[in-house]
Amino acid sequence: MSKAAKTDNNKDPKGRKRATSYDVAELAGVSQSAVSRVFQDGASASQAMRNRVMTAADTLGYRPNAIARGLITQRSNMVAVVISKLTNLYYPEVLVQLTQRFSEHDVRVLLFALEHEGDTGTVIEQMLQYRVDGIVTAAMFTPEQIKTINNARIPLVFYNRTPRDQLVSSVRCDQEEGERWLVDELVNAGHKTFGIVAGPPDSAVGIAREMGALNALAEMGVTDITTVSGDYGYETGRECFAQLVQKRGSPPDAIIAGNDVMAIGCIDAARENYGLKVPDDISIVGFDGVGPARYAAYDVTTVRQPVLRMTQSAASMLIERIENPELSPEKRAFSGRLIRGSSARLHSEDA
Amino acid sequence: MSKAAKTDNNKDPKGRKRATSYDVAELAGVSQSAVSRVFQDGASASQAMRNRVMTAADTLGYRPNAIARGLITQRSNMVAVVISKLTNLYYPEVLVQLTQRFSEHDVRVLLFALEHEGDTGTVIEQMLQYRVDGIVTAAMFTPEQIKTINNARIPLVFYNRTPRDQLVSSVRCDQEEGERWLVDELVNAGHKTFGIVAGPPDSAVGIAREMGALNALAEMGVTDITTVSGDYGYETGRECFAQLVQKRGSPPDAIIAGNDVMAIGCIDAARENYGLKVPDDISIVGFDGVGPARYAAYDVTTVRQPVLRMTQSAASMLIERIENPELSPEKRAFSGRLIRGSSARLHSEDA
Repeated sequence: MSKAAKTDNNKDPKGRKRATSYDVAELAGVSQSAVSRVFQDGASASQAMRNRVMTAADTLGYRPNAIARGLITQRSNMVAVVISKLTNLYYPEVLVQLTQRFSEHDVRVLLFALEHEGDTGTVIEQMLQYRVDGIVTAAMFTPEQIKTINNARIPLVFYNRTPRDQLVSSVRCDQEEGERWLVDELVNAGHKTFGIVAGPPDSAVGIAREMGALNALAEMGVTDITTVSGDYGYETGRECFAQLVQKRGSPPDAIIAGNDVMAIGCIDAARENYGLKVPDDISIVGFDGVGPARYAAYDVTTVRQPVLRMTQSAASMLIERIENPELSPEKRAFSGRLIRGSSARLHSEDA
Repeated sequence: MSKAAKTDNNKDPKGRKRATSYDVAELAGVSQSAVSRVFQDGASASQAMRNRVMTAADTLGYRPNAIARGLITQRSNMVAVVISKLTNLYYPEVLVQLTQRFSEHDVRVLLFALEHEGDTGTVIEQMLQYRVDGIVTAAMFTPEQIKTINNARIPLVFYNRTPRDQLVSSVRCDQEEGERWLVDELVNAGHKTFGIVAGPPDSAVGIAREMGALNALAEMGVTDITTVSGDYGYETGRECFAQLVQKRGSPPDAIIAGNDVMAIGCIDAARENYGLKVPDDISIVGFDGVGPARYAAYDVTTVRQPVLRMTQSAASMLIERIENPELSPEKRAFSGRLIRGSSARLHSEDA
């Protein structure tokens, strides 16, 4: 912001300077140290003193400087939250929950929103420059980036991804387990041919889900598997369905989509473009448990991530490591919950 | 975070202190002022000097302190973004767009997520303490809160709400105009009885939409209007449909929902609980233009807000006022775009 530096931002439109604690002291007729005491947690000041100082502070629009205080305590009381693909319906919930959990600890969230999960290149430097106390990331970092963060002694918690061979903390939903549940139910219900609509190649969660489904299918002896890849959006779900049919020559018995929104796209393509009945002609399952998965027209069979517990854990794990940097890394994996919608014929319904 | 104050956060797990510019200078064998120059935008330093300093900085995990720099320039290079009802599908898009627009100006977003729009009480004080350079708020503030922010000389831009009788900047979608379009089309297509599913009473946008619809209906001479109120969610849309039918004794010709998600809930209730065909038996319209409104099973007639232009404007209006505090307030209203889905019988389709 080089342009900004030319104006004097310490002045208001009428040319007055921002009030300092000295201005407040002068107006209140007390010492500057008295003003400091009033604004310091736990410091002693009489109620009369508090009233005089607060009245003067309100008049002048003065507020103690959390940033300056941070320089003394070496704490910014800010954590960085790195998030990607926010328009994926799943993540907004995560962000609200995280922000509210940190707020309970009097810590604010500095937001870094990536267009793609791979766009982490520039944000590391920015987070370090703002001296965040800690980082929760829902985007994958490279080993070099993790090393840079560790060198800067900033606690780091990965959300829904666990970097391989790295000594870091993470909280995640057990995607592999969830995919196994879906595959077990589908195979036991008689589905023999499968389509997989995977997430984008730079999505760590997408890769975990795809590998989870492929491994489970292999263990169950399924060999007729066709895979295509989408971007987690509705339109891509519709297009992927067409690609699957084109690649195979006919629709598979079941489709395992990388998230609920692509599953919804597949359902609409199956119905509208191929005249198929869901689930009579084809079973379609998703993952996440987002709101639209419960709309009556779709009622998607899916695995719901325990968002509340995951975000609570991510926040508390990070806060603990900010307060006690000697804590060793910790990895927590939460089981999701299978939601039996009407978009798939499942084993237990036939039994 | 009183507990945290007891630990020395300036030390890493092995008891080493965070590296300072002096540490870097010592390792690089240069002066501290040389280190400062390397990290200062536009300051002169030879490439050889840069290389020596950067190598030492990387080794020690040193980064210049954006916060400390902010104390000198009186700029934190952070703006507060206040947002509520984030789980409403519409707002995540706003947040990503805003964050990316500010990022282009090298400004970071400090996020304040409110559970309800009315929960603004505590955030004002927090924003002031963090010395944000400016505020974009998608939650309404009271005149007292606006005065407090003005006293602190912090530029403020309201997003999608314009406080009455206040000298503040705002950017919004013209909700009233959008509702008028919907009402005109519906009335001209022969709809005579109306249900309104309004947003929550503390939503400024919800009130603007409800009043816009009511005023347009009154001007068109419609008198058979039943109003209920929901919380913008899918389930509430279903419940509101039932309430409307109960209040009226029968379904109205058309329902105007406060957002797309409640419109989707109304469509499902009409189909599933009342056996009605949409739009043959009843027309249902929404507002926002969110993703699920375009799902084939709903295809909601709605007004799409120009999110990209609105967020670009909010960011640039705020940046301008941070750089030049003397700029007078400005109000911008953007027209939405009517999306003719198959959830309503519209005039122009009959013509």
